[in-house]
Amino acid sequence: MSFDSMWAALELVGRNSESGGYRRYAWTKEDATLREWFAGEAAVRGLDLVEDRVGNQWAWWGDPDAVAGQKGVVVGSHLDSVPDGGAFDGPLGVISAFAAVDALRAAGFVPNRPVAVVNFGDEEGARFGVACGGSRLLTGALDANRALNLIDGDGVSMAEARAMAGRRKDQIGPDPEALRRVGAFVELHIEQGRGLVHTGQAVAVASSIWPHGRWRLDLEGEANHAGTTRLDDRRDPMLALADVVTTARHSAHRHGCVATIGKVTLTPNAVNAIPSRVTAWLDARGPDEAGVRAVVSDVSAAGGGAIEESWTNSTAFDASLRERLESVLGGVPILATGAGHDAGILSAAGVPTAMLFVRNPTGVSHSPAEHAERDDCLAGVDALSKVIAELAGPDRP
Amino acid sequence: MSFDSMWAALELVGRNSESGGYRRYAWTKEDATLREWFAGEAAVRGLDLVEDRVGNQWAWWGDPDAVAGQKGVVVGSHLDSVPDGGAFDGPLGVISAFAAVDALRAAGFVPNRPVAVVNFGDEEGARFGVACGGSRLLTGALDANRALNLIDGDGVSMAEARAMAGRRKDQIGPDPEALRRVGAFVELHIEQGRGLVHTGQAVAVASSIWPHGRWRLDLEGEANHAGTTRLDDRRDPMLALADVVTTARHSAHRHGCVATIGKVTLTPNAVNAIPSRVTAWLDARGPDEAGVRAVVSDVSAAGGGAIEESWTNSTAFDASLRERLESVLGGVPILATGAGHDAGILSAAGVPTAMLFVRNPTGVSHSPAEHAERDDCLAGVDALSKVIAELAGPDRP
Repeated sequence: MSFDSMWAALELVGRNSESGGYRRYAWTKEDATLREWFAGEAAVRGLDLVEDRVGNQWAWWGDPDAVAGQKGVVVGSHLDSVPDGGAFDGPLGVISAFAAVDALRAAGFVPNRPVAVVNFGDEEGARFGVACGGSRLLTGALDANRALNLIDGDGVSMAEARAMAGRRKDQIGPDPEALRRVGAFVELHIEQGRGLVHTGQAVAVASSIWPHGRWRLDLEGEANHAGTTRLDDRRDPMLALADVVTTARHSAHRHGCVATIGKVTLTPNAVNAIPSRVTAWLDARGPDEAGVRAVVSDVSAAGGGAIEESWTNSTAFDASLRERLESVLGGVPILATGAGHDAGILSAAGVPTAMLFVRNPTGVSHSPAEHAERDDCLAGVDALSKVIAELAGPDRP
Repeated sequence: MSFDSMWAALELVGRNSESGGYRRYAWTKEDATLREWFAGEAAVRGLDLVEDRVGNQWAWWGDPDAVAGQKGVVVGSHLDSVPDGGAFDGPLGVISAFAAVDALRAAGFVPNRPVAVVNFGDEEGARFGVACGGSRLLTGALDANRALNLIDGDGVSMAEARAMAGRRKDQIGPDPEALRRVGAFVELHIEQGRGLVHTGQAVAVASSIWPHGRWRLDLEGEANHAGTTRLDDRRDPMLALADVVTTARHSAHRHGCVATIGKVTLTPNAVNAIPSRVTAWLDARGPDEAGVRAVVSDVSAAGGGAIEESWTNSTAFDASLRERLESVLGGVPILATGAGHDAGILSAAGVPTAMLFVRNPTGVSHSPAEHAERDDCLAGVDALSKVIAELAGPDRP
C-alpha cells in the first residue's frame, strides 16, 4: 500500500525475463491482472470503483453524483505498456495518484469535492495500433465500430479480445456521463526526454503536446527467388524502404521535427525471397503542424504514398489550470512534449487538463532502461498532493 | 495417379487462401500430409518405402540391396516450400519422377538396376533457416547436433519439432547406407529464371550451381521514444539497415552478383519506439566466389559485421553424367543457376548428379505467381523418362 510496496506489487506483471521490459497489452491476461490490482488498491482505500463503457477504471473518493453540477478532480494515468517498455511510463502516474491520496488523508485533508484516481486502458495502442484508445473511445474521438474491428498481430479483433475479457460488445462507446464528472484531469508522467535534467528540478508542468500522427506506407514489390532473379528484373521493395528511412531522417532534420520508422513487416520475410511487399509505419511529430506535414509529404513521395492512421492536433493545456499548478508549485519549469497522452485527448474534448512531468535522468523512454530516481518520484507525489489539495480544497474567494 | 491427378491431390495442402501461396514447412502438419501422400503414391505403385535416418523418403522400384555393389538410379526433389511459395518448386520434380516411372512401366520398360523416387525433407529451410537440411544431414554436411538445436520463429527447436512428428532424436545423423545406394541422382526442377525462354525449348540440363551463402547482420541501436528523443540523441539501427540494403544492391551490381535482404526483424517493432535492434539477413550469390565474397565484405562494412550462417561452394555437376543426358535428350540447352538444390549437396558429397530444368515463362519463383505450362511439364516427364531408361537400362558395351 505504500509507494514502494505498490511498485513491488507490479514489478513482475508482464515483465519479459529476457528483455527485462514490460509487455502489457490491452485485454490480455496481464491487463486483467493490472486491472485487478487497481481494483484492489481502490478497495483497501475505500474508494468506489467504476468502470466506464470503454473499460477505463475510476476509483472515487467521494460520490461524484452527490451534488448536481459539482465536478470532480481526477488524477492518474495508464498501466499498459509498449512492447518491452519501461516500468514508469504509465504506472508512475497511477501509483503516484494513490500515494497522493494516502498523503492527503494522512495529513487530515478533507476534500471539498470528489477526487478520483483513473486508469485509462490501452494508452500505448501496442496491440491494436491506435494510441490512447481508452480516452479516445470515452470522448468519441475514436469510433466504436472502427475500434471493435481493429485487428492485432494474431488476427484477433478488439471485439473478440474484449469478449474474451468478459466485456460486452454493446458496452463500448462514448460515455458522456463518466466524462461529465471530470472537472479537471491532472496526469503525472515520467518525462520522456531530458528537458528537466538541465533545470536541476525534479518536477515540471506541461505547456502543450506537439501535433503528431502515424502513417502507413505499403511498398509494393514482386516476390521472386533471391538467387535466380537478375538485378534488373527485380522489383525489390526494400530499396524503397531504404529511401523512406533516409528521407524521414533528413526531412525531419530540415523541418525541426522528429520522424521514426519503428515498425516494419516484410512479406514473406524469407532469407531467399525478394519481398513481395514491405509495410512501414511512420511516426512524425514537431512543434508545428506545417513542419510535420512537410515531413510526411517528403516521406510519402519516397514511398509512393502514405495512409494516415491517426492525427492529433497540437494540444495546449488549459491555461488557467496551468497557472494554478504553477502558483501552488512555485517556480516550476514549463515544458512542451512530443509524446501523446490521454491528457491530450481529454483536453481536446474540452476537459480542463494539466500534466506534471517527473525527471528522467537519461531521457530514455519506451525501453527497459527507462528510469526515474526514487527521490524524484516522491517529489512528484508531493507535487501531485499539493495540486489535489489546491483543486479539491476549499473554494477560493 | 495420373500426372494431373497428382497435382490435384496436392493443390490445397498448405495453401494459404489469402496469398494463394504455399506454406509447407518441415515437421509441421502440412509436412506430415505431404509425407503421407508420398507414401501412398509409393504404395499404389508397389514401390518399397524407406525413410532414412534424417527423414528423407525413398520409394524403391527394385531392391537396392539385392546385388552387392550395384547402385540405383534416383530421381525426385522436395515437397516443402518457402513462405507463400509456388506450386512447382519441389513438387514438380517429385510428381514428374512418379509420372516417369508410370510412363516407363506403361511402355514395358524393365530396369536393369534399382530405381527410386526421393522426397528430400526441409529443402527450403523456411522453418529453421538452413536450406537443404535433409540432404545436408544425410551426407554429414550439416552437423546433427547443430541441426537439432536450430530454433524456429516460435522458439521450437528442430529436436522438439521432430519429436512432435514422432521421430526419435537419436535417429538423426549421416546415413552412409542410404547414400551408398545412390549411383546417380537426377533432380528435375522448374527453372527459377528465364534462361530457357529465349531458347524456344522446354527442358534444359544444368551445368553448375553458383557459390552462395547467407549472412546475418545484427544492427544495434538504443530503444527510445519516437516522439521525445531528439534526432541527435538517437541511435537508430534503421539508418544502418537502409545503408545495408543500398550497399547490397550497388555492390552486387558492381561485382556481377545478386544480393538480397529478404528477411528482417525489428525489436520491439512498435510504431512509436526507435528500435533497439534490427537483424537483417543477406543472401548473396554469383558466378564466382571472389565476387560474392567482395559483396559480403562491402555489406558487412556497412552493417558493422556479418555472421556467416551458411556457405556453399560452386557446384559443377558430374561431367560424364551430363554428357549422357545431353546425348539422350539431344541438342538441349545447358544452364547454370543461382539456386541451391539437394542435387548440389549430393554432388558435393561425391554422388554423380545432374539436373533438368523445365521452362518458367516469367522466371518468377518463390512466389504464388510461379508457373510452368502443362505441355512443358509433360516434356519434362518425357525427358526424365528417357534419362531413367538410359541410366537404368541395359549396360552399354
